[in-house]
Amino acid sequence: MKRRLAITCGDVAGIGPEVALKAAIAATRLCEPVLVGPRAVWEREAKKLRRGGALVACAVDIAAPVLPKLGADSATGGAIAIAAIDWAIDAAKRGDVHGVVTAPVSKTSLHLAGYAYPGQTEYFAEQCGGARVAMMLAGPSLRVVLVSTHLALKDAIATLSAERVYEIASIAHHGLKALLGKKPRLALAALNPHAGEGGKFGDEEARILAPAVARARAAKIDLNGPFPADTLFWYARQGRYDAVLVLYHDQGLIPLKVLDFDEGVNVTLGLPIVRTSPDHGTAFDIAGKGKARATSMLAAIRLALSVSSKGA
Amino acid sequence: MKRRLAITCGDVAGIGPEVALKAAIAATRLCEPVLVGPRAVWEREAKKLRRGGALVACAVDIAAPVLPKLGADSATGGAIAIAAIDWAIDAAKRGDVHGVVTAPVSKTSLHLAGYAYPGQTEYFAEQCGGARVAMMLAGPSLRVVLVSTHLALKDAIATLSAERVYEIASIAHHGLKALLGKKPRLALAALNPHAGEGGKFGDEEARILAPAVARARAAKIDLNGPFPADTLFWYARQGRYDAVLVLYHDQGLIPLKVLDFDEGVNVTLGLPIVRTSPDHGTAFDIAGKGKARATSMLAAIRLALSVSSKGA
Repeated sequence: MKRRLAITCGDVAGIGPEVALKAAIAATRLCEPVLVGPRAVWEREAKKLRRGGALVACAVDIAAPVLPKLGADSATGGAIAIAAIDWAIDAAKRGDVHGVVTAPVSKTSLHLAGYAYPGQTEYFAEQCGGARVAMMLAGPSLRVVLVSTHLALKDAIATLSAERVYEIASIAHHGLKALLGKKPRLALAALNPHAGEGGKFGDEEARILAPAVARARAAKIDLNGPFPADTLFWYARQGRYDAVLVLYHDQGLIPLKVLDFDEGVNVTLGLPIVRTSPDHGTAFDIAGKGKARATSMLAAIRLALSVSSKGA
Repeated sequence: MKRRLAITCGDVAGIGPEVALKAAIAATRLCEPVLVGPRAVWEREAKKLRRGGALVACAVDIAAPVLPKLGADSATGGAIAIAAIDWAIDAAKRGDVHGVVTAPVSKTSLHLAGYAYPGQTEYFAEQCGGARVAMMLAGPSLRVVLVSTHLALKDAIATLSAERVYEIASIAHHGLKALLGKKPRLALAALNPHAGEGGKFGDEEARILAPAVARARAAKIDLNGPFPADTLFWYARQGRYDAVLVLYHDQGLIPLKVLDFDEGVNVTLGLPIVRTSPDHGTAFDIAGKGKARATSMLAAIRLALSVSSKGA
């Protein structure tokens, strides 16, 4: 029997519904995709594609008296996105679906709708009892786990702590162990060039990162480093590590995207349910034009299936 | 007639002489390599390789009453490295060689020898009348020009200024124009994730980077951006830009090395003479073991020839 995956519409003013339906159609041999979003939106997309009618007929309809204008932030878009997520989280908790794949939302729309979350990941964490989570981006070549996410670079440095690095290492260890079925080999990227070259260019390696690694190793987590970030991803790419812990957003996203531009998948580690998403945004500029590529969304579906099959 | 290139020994306690001789041997069909360093060191390397005798016979001997121990920093190693550079710079200024390719030095050895420079680039700049220079790293897939080099990441942020970005853009523009024979298309990487997303995560894009771009464009420099750094290198890799200006060391070195680990070449833009070097260090851990790969050193020789042929 095929496993069921909830696939949310995201912000319906963006490319979310388009990539969701395209990916769901491509994934029907692998799983039973359950589209979650306003029926009128799915019907609109199916009509454009001239495919997907059977999937739309089985979609979970999210009430939407009015639909937002394409290509713009709106309170309506944010409210619909959250309603779809709410349904999907409940279904996953009940065991009615094996996992949730979320299309992209606009943070501004979420704010306009009254949800003060930096993104969907934090909303999932709160709805799952305040779970401590970590964001992992996985591509064909690399997996990176983010110690900080959407922060100004100077704030990412200011808030860096051994406690935080240890916590993310612990979440990554347990989450990847479930995903891979074995103890993961983890590497920690340094903050400063040449890992500070013995303290010449910064002391965070000695003051914060090395103690975090020591604490993780004492807890039997196979965390290595901190290593100079410029060469680390090459070694990780060769298979030396299962994932790299990165200290700021671009430290991980630069190597991931330069290698595998639109195949990256966002996985939330630490949740009691399976949740993945594509690593792109709402792309308001091409919404409704039929040009959006569903590569990352389909990769997110595949990864959700692969994780849920291993009982994460 | 073949062009002559001075190839310095670097710190003779590291892999410098080994990669210099290996690369010089491989390059003899392309140019006339002039080895610069203690004759005893070149003889030692030629004996190990059982090749290169003719090159060693023509080497410029740098006096060295005593040679440093392999694999360690030393004042002697620093002093020899500087003496070799001095000869090469003078030869290039006189026009006796068409360019200089430098093997790696140890910054600690330079300090021990009494030279308080962060690296060879700064020494070249000073010896060339205080030229304003920029460090470019060039690989087969990408070229990046560094707005800051060997600084703690938080200092790279603290010292960022529109003036500095404009200056580097100007040096990159003129240097690359000479190198490529056409007006270069330049892109500027943003500092914060998603380029700050309209000021949500940091204001350096609006406060510092956008004014620098405006000033550069007013000066007919084709500088574009600032763009989110995580996707920019993908576009640069596809050929949309000739080089990316990066704000801190790892921002440029991470994408360069994950793509072309040991083929990166360091080019000093802004000097009146041609100077390139490999993008690796002294590798003290494998010094004298015959295991060093000369890929980057040979790429540095090729690039120096390519630049000097276009009259930079």
